[in-house]
Amino acid sequence: MAAPAALFASRGSDAEIEQGVAFAPKFDADGLIPAIVTDAASGEVLMLAWMNAEALALTLETRVGHFWSRSRAKLWKKGEDSGNVLEVSELRTDCDQDAIWLKVVVAGDGVACHTGERSCFYRSLPLGVRPSPDRPMRRA
Amino acid sequence: MAAPAALFASRGSDAEIEQGVAFAPKFDADGLIPAIVTDAASGEVLMLAWMNAEALALTLETRVGHFWSRSRAKLWKKGEDSGNVLEVSELRTDCDQDAIWLKVVVAGDGVACHTGERSCFYRSLPLGVRPSPDRPMRRA
Repeated sequence: MAAPAALFASRGSDAEIEQGVAFAPKFDADGLIPAIVTDAASGEVLMLAWMNAEALALTLETRVGHFWSRSRAKLWKKGEDSGNVLEVSELRTDCDQDAIWLKVVVAGDGVACHTGERSCFYRSLPLGVRPSPDRPMRRA
Repeated sequence: MAAPAALFASRGSDAEIEQGVAFAPKFDADGLIPAIVTDAASGEVLMLAWMNAEALALTLETRVGHFWSRSRAKLWKKGEDSGNVLEVSELRTDCDQDAIWLKVVVAGDGVACHTGERSCFYRSLPLGVRPSPDRPMRRA
């Protein structure tokens, strides 16, 4: 069996990684890269999820958000069950090419979080005080 | 010497973590949690950085973005040298409490990336095609 075709470029020098146009994403020791998901219209951050190489390749190829579920240890097409599929309008990487940013339209009723919230980031922290265990968060 | 006061709540049940108001951030095996930084005005994603417990506590207390530099293995007050300090207007966590979202105003000339770009995410990927090493990124 032939080796699978390479999906991404090899990591080059710092200058190549930062200024070049070759996509050479850096996966961590578990083979994962963090992916920030924002609402393409509102800009709201919806979730932070993780991709392995195949999830990233599938997302690029199909324009539908795929991730690696760390809790279930399997490839995860977000919205497969709920219908809240993520239609990707743009996919970027950062200077070090060790993070991904997806702008998406959430299909169905627009809910991105498994709790039923539109965004996973529905609680905010008090600012200007040293944190302590009894200082509550607020609904955002 | 007395033990330092606890900063955060202990991790409870899934229901407590998702629905409760106790802040019990989950740090990874290296003691870090990913922090998404967005521009408070435009919503643009500026960077993804990492915080240890002390960086997170300092950010909450001072309203200025602090991180853990993985490359330099030290606490990092972003903008300490460049003047591009991050003034935090809001700090949220997600359903699992294993990610942070900061909305910030970038001080100085508004540049968040060490390359001189406003955002670290200045390159986008071609969509709708299987990725391959010779398929270039574009300036976003």
